[in-house]
Amino acid sequence: MLNITKRVQTLEYAIRDVVEHARQLEKKGKDIIYLNIGDPLQFDFETPKHITEALIRAVKEGFNRYSPSEGLPELREAICEKEKKIGGITISPDNVIISNGVSEGIQMVLGALVDNGTEILVPGPAYPPYIAYTSFFGGKAVQYRTSEENGWQPDLDDARSKVNDSTGAIVIINPNNPCGALYNKKIIKEMTDLAGEYNIPLISDEIYDQISYDEPVSTAKVAKDVSVIGLNGFSKVYLMTGWRLGYVYFKGQDNRTLQELREHVTKEARIRLSANTPVQKAAVEALRGPQNHISSMMKKLQERRDYSHKRIKEIDGINCAEPKGTFYFFPKVDEIGSRWVNDMAFVRDVLENTGIVFVHGSGFGSAYGSGHFRGVFLPPMETLEKTFNRLDHFMTQSEQ
Amino acid sequence: MLNITKRVQTLEYAIRDVVEHARQLEKKGKDIIYLNIGDPLQFDFETPKHITEALIRAVKEGFNRYSPSEGLPELREAICEKEKKIGGITISPDNVIISNGVSEGIQMVLGALVDNGTEILVPGPAYPPYIAYTSFFGGKAVQYRTSEENGWQPDLDDARSKVNDSTGAIVIINPNNPCGALYNKKIIKEMTDLAGEYNIPLISDEIYDQISYDEPVSTAKVAKDVSVIGLNGFSKVYLMTGWRLGYVYFKGQDNRTLQELREHVTKEARIRLSANTPVQKAAVEALRGPQNHISSMMKKLQERRDYSHKRIKEIDGINCAEPKGTFYFFPKVDEIGSRWVNDMAFVRDVLENTGIVFVHGSGFGSAYGSGHFRGVFLPPMETLEKTFNRLDHFMTQSEQ
Repeated sequence: MLNITKRVQTLEYAIRDVVEHARQLEKKGKDIIYLNIGDPLQFDFETPKHITEALIRAVKEGFNRYSPSEGLPELREAICEKEKKIGGITISPDNVIISNGVSEGIQMVLGALVDNGTEILVPGPAYPPYIAYTSFFGGKAVQYRTSEENGWQPDLDDARSKVNDSTGAIVIINPNNPCGALYNKKIIKEMTDLAGEYNIPLISDEIYDQISYDEPVSTAKVAKDVSVIGLNGFSKVYLMTGWRLGYVYFKGQDNRTLQELREHVTKEARIRLSANTPVQKAAVEALRGPQNHISSMMKKLQERRDYSHKRIKEIDGINCAEPKGTFYFFPKVDEIGSRWVNDMAFVRDVLENTGIVFVHGSGFGSAYGSGHFRGVFLPPMETLEKTFNRLDHFMTQSEQ
Repeated sequence: MLNITKRVQTLEYAIRDVVEHARQLEKKGKDIIYLNIGDPLQFDFETPKHITEALIRAVKEGFNRYSPSEGLPELREAICEKEKKIGGITISPDNVIISNGVSEGIQMVLGALVDNGTEILVPGPAYPPYIAYTSFFGGKAVQYRTSEENGWQPDLDDARSKVNDSTGAIVIINPNNPCGALYNKKIIKEMTDLAGEYNIPLISDEIYDQISYDEPVSTAKVAKDVSVIGLNGFSKVYLMTGWRLGYVYFKGQDNRTLQELREHVTKEARIRLSANTPVQKAAVEALRGPQNHISSMMKKLQERRDYSHKRIKEIDGINCAEPKGTFYFFPKVDEIGSRWVNDMAFVRDVLENTGIVFVHGSGFGSAYGSGHFRGVFLPPMETLEKTFNRLDHFMTQSEQ
C-alpha cells in the first residue's frame, strides 16, 4: 500500500510555510506586506539589462539543449575568475559544478555526506535547508551557538563541544542568513582550524558575498589546506532569483577524498541531466560583464539597512544586532513567554494586526532562533516606513 | 572525517557515463556521432519560435523572480487543459506540481515513497533514474519483464509475481524509453488492476505522450479509481530540453493518502524554492499556443524511424522490434557472449571502430537490458545513412 516516508514527513521550510495564512487574509482584503522571502526582485530591484539580454541572445542563438551535467565549461571558468577576484582563492574549473540554485547544491552535497546518524554542525540560527536536507538524508543537524551579543559570530567553544565521531561536516553561512552577521577573519580561522583538527570538511555558503556592509572574508582563502565545499549562486548579487542557478566548488590540498566527493556529486548531477542552459550563458555575462549594478544596489540597501535598524532600536520590546551583510534583520522580542507564548504566536499576531509577514525565529532552528523573527529590509523607504510605523503601533498598544 | 555515503557510491547514469571515452577519441580527431542522448535539439530540431518568444517576453516583462514552489497557477491550469485534451483525464490544478524536468519529479516522488527496503517495480529495461533514485533512497528497484517478442509490452505474470508487501509503487514508462514500445490499453488496464488489487500507486511516465506512431493511452484514464502519479515534461514534445521543466500530477478517487503524498512532495518543492519562472511562462505558451510543430516533428521522425528500422533489419547480427513511440531503437545483438563478452564491450568496440556512441543495454538494468544497445533515430537522413553504413560494415567485417 501507499506508504509515505518519514524523510518527507519531517520536512519544514518556515520561510514559505508561513505564507498560507497571509494569502487567506489577503483574499479577505487585508493589505499584506510580504517581508518573508529574500527576493530583491519582489521590490524595486531588477535583473540588470546586460544579463537579461545575454539570456535572450542565448535563447535566440539556440543554446537551448541539454548542457554538460557539471555545467558549461565557460561558466565554470568564469566562476574561477570570480572566486579569484572576489574571494582571493584559486580553484580549477574541474572543481566547480553548476546547480539549480544553491538549494540543489545543498541537497547534492548533503546527499553525498549524510548517512543515518551523521551529524552536521550548522550555525544556530541557520538557513532552514541545511537542517531540512540533513534530516531528509537520515542525519541530524546539530546547531552550534552564534552569539547575538557579539553580532551573531560563531561561539567557537560551543562548536568545539559539539564535534564528535559522527560529525560529517561543519557549515558556515557568511554573510549569514538569517542573522545578517558578517564573520571576522579570526573566527573563520578558528572554525577552519577546528575542522582541520578533526579532518572534517567545511561547507561554506557565501551566496551573499558581495552583499556586505564591511569587507567579507572567503572561508576557502583562510582555510589553506582544510577541505572546503563552497556554495554560491546568482540569485542575490546578480538579481537572478527566479532563474535558479548556483554552484558548488571543492577546494583542498591534495585531498583524494575531496576529489572522490566531487566525483560523486557529479554523478548526482548527471542523473538530473543538466542545469538550465541559456541561464548558464547569462551567468557568464553576469560574472564577466559590468558589475556596477552591485554598487547601486548596495547604496539602496545600506540606506534601508540604516533606516530599519534605527527604527527597530526605537521600538519598545524589540532589539536587533546591526546587520553587516545580507538584507535580513533578525530582532529579539522581549515579551516572548509572557505577552506571546512563543515566536510563532508573535509572528501570527503581527500578521493579523498589521498585515506584515515575518518568519518566526524558531523556523531557523528552535535552540537559538526562538524568541526572534526574520524580516527583509529590501522594500523601498515608503514601505519600510509603513512597516515600522505599523510595528511600532502594534508593539506599544495596550496588551490584550 | 570526510565520509562519503553509500547512497551516492552506487549511482549510475549510463546515458552520460559513456561519453568520457567518446570525448577522448574526438580530441584525437575521430569523427564521433553521438546517438546516446535523447535531445532533438542536438540535431535539426529547434524550440518553436512562439515558445522562445514567450520566454523572451516573460524575461523582458520582469517575470524573473521566485515563483510559487508548486508552480505558476496559470501553468498548472494549462497542464490540466492539456491532460484533458491529450490524455482524456480530469485533474485539478491543485494536484499538479511543477518540477525542474521529469528528473526532479522522479526524485521528489521516490523521495516520498522509498524507505530502506522499499521495492519499486520498474519495467525491465527502464530509464535509469528510476533505478538510480530508488537505490539513492535506500530501496531496491525490482524490474518486471517486458517482452521483446511482443513489442516490449509488460509481462503481467512476471510483474504480478514480483509484487509483495515491500512494494511501494509500480512504474510504467509509456511510450517507453529505452525500448520505443507503446503499451496497449489492455495491458495498461491489467497493470492498473494489479496496482489496485494490492493498493499500490502507479507511477506513469508519459513524457513521450505525443511522440508516438500509434494512438497512445493515458494510464490515469484507464486507471479509474487506482492512484496514479503522472510524470511529464516539456523537453521532448515541446523541444525545451535545456530549459528543464516538467510536472507531476496526482490522480485518485477520494484518496486521502494520495493527497498526503501530494502535500509532502509540495514540501520537498518548497525547500528548493521554485522552478525557473520565465520558463514556466513559456511553457504556458507551449501548451496553449500553436501545436503544429508536433506534426512536422512527427513527420520527420516517422521517416527516420522507418529508415532506421529497415536498415537495422538488414544488418546481420542485430535485430530490433519496431519502435512505436519515442525516438529510440533498442536492438538485440546476437553475438554477445561470443564475439563480445557483454553489451558494454560491444558498445565500446562500435565506438572505437565506427565513432558511433550508443548506450549499452545493461545500463537500463542488466536483467532485461543486457545484450542490447540504445540509439536515437533523431539525426537527419544523411547522418542516419552514415551511421548504418558504418554499423553494417562493422558488423559484417571478419571477426578479430
